[in-house]
Amino acid sequence: MSHTPDEGVPSPPSTSTALHSAGFTRKINFCQLCGGPTKHEVPDGEEKPRAICTRCGKIAYENPKMVVGCLIEHDNKILLCKRNVQPSHGLWTLPAGYMEIGESAAEGAIRETWEEANAQVEILSPFAQLDIPLIGQTYIIFLAKLKRPHFAPGPESSECKLFALEDIPFDSLAFSSMLVTLNLYMEDKKTGRAKFHYGTINKRPGTSPSEIREYTLDSHMRC
Amino acid sequence: MSHTPDEGVPSPPSTSTALHSAGFTRKINFCQLCGGPTKHEVPDGEEKPRAICTRCGKIAYENPKMVVGCLIEHDNKILLCKRNVQPSHGLWTLPAGYMEIGESAAEGAIRETWEEANAQVEILSPFAQLDIPLIGQTYIIFLAKLKRPHFAPGPESSECKLFALEDIPFDSLAFSSMLVTLNLYMEDKKTGRAKFHYGTINKRPGTSPSEIREYTLDSHMRC
Repeated sequence: MSHTPDEGVPSPPSTSTALHSAGFTRKINFCQLCGGPTKHEVPDGEEKPRAICTRCGKIAYENPKMVVGCLIEHDNKILLCKRNVQPSHGLWTLPAGYMEIGESAAEGAIRETWEEANAQVEILSPFAQLDIPLIGQTYIIFLAKLKRPHFAPGPESSECKLFALEDIPFDSLAFSSMLVTLNLYMEDKKTGRAKFHYGTINKRPGTSPSEIREYTLDSHMRC
Repeated sequence: MSHTPDEGVPSPPSTSTALHSAGFTRKINFCQLCGGPTKHEVPDGEEKPRAICTRCGKIAYENPKMVVGCLIEHDNKILLCKRNVQPSHGLWTLPAGYMEIGESAAEGAIRETWEEANAQVEILSPFAQLDIPLIGQTYIIFLAKLKRPHFAPGPESSECKLFALEDIPFDSLAFSSMLVTLNLYMEDKKTGRAKFHYGTINKRPGTSPSEIREYTLDSHMRC
């Protein structure tokens, strides 16, 4: 889908502190319901500034988005896709994309894998939840296996390829989330068994999507 | 916060099949960026109908929301809050609410617990991810413990109380997600150890928030 995640840090808001704390609300100039102009204020009984319609009063809440994807194991290799779209064109990623309303995270991960790698997969287990607060994204990654040994690049990929663990292109990965996911996977492989991981990727403010090593992994828990 | 999850199934869209598949886009009448009126069509290169601005062309994507909360253990009891707001006023829930941009899921769960139960908690481990595709929500629940033995109802709660496992008010719970979470917790307690659960709560279309047993738990995996 062309609705593609972008780990790039949004450019800083230009005006007030209220807008800064509101984060993404600066793009909400009009009400989706009635078309009235918005103001950016802290609503009664709340603590954060929101975009409030000056005509009908509707508050436009914004919430983090889930990006769902698959870490696909096949013959001791894993499947990566080379991105044929921006951001991070030409770099490698797990098949992943925004979860849609009406599907589960697992269904979304299966759908994205079909769209980006033309591969039919079966989910094996949840593998990781990685929050990226600075950009309002949460990655939900599942371990999966190929239902049949077929894959081919979809419209957003220029190449799909199985990599042995020692050949994973760690210097050509598309996103911090993929670097963290693959690092955790490598660690689990060494200790013998894949686990479920929860963690927060705190990206350094002001970094670009290409600076994928500019983060700390905090509050990492495995179970 | 007054930005409260509601498991009620949205009333069915009244017009076309396109609107029906688009789910929630029927409420997007105007563009948030330029205020132009929207049309509901499948954009080029995509498969689902979206609200597209007829003036500037911006597509208004809608994605599922994360509800984050804590399952707090204290002296072999768990902490529940009686809701003082609609929906499900007067019924019991774990402290939980919508995750905000700029925070991690764990931080959001801690914040919601502070707001709803005036309790300071420490996250112990991720406990469950429960997707509810029909209403575009994903519940992320953490096991947690009280940092100090203090709690009291916040503005959205009329009462906060520790319940022994045999006293959990299963007949007065607020949401299907809470029923599933507490059922899984009870099962884990019997087998000795809490695990991480992933599953999909498929609610029966047309059910109201009060019909919390009208669901199936599908694709349940624990690890």
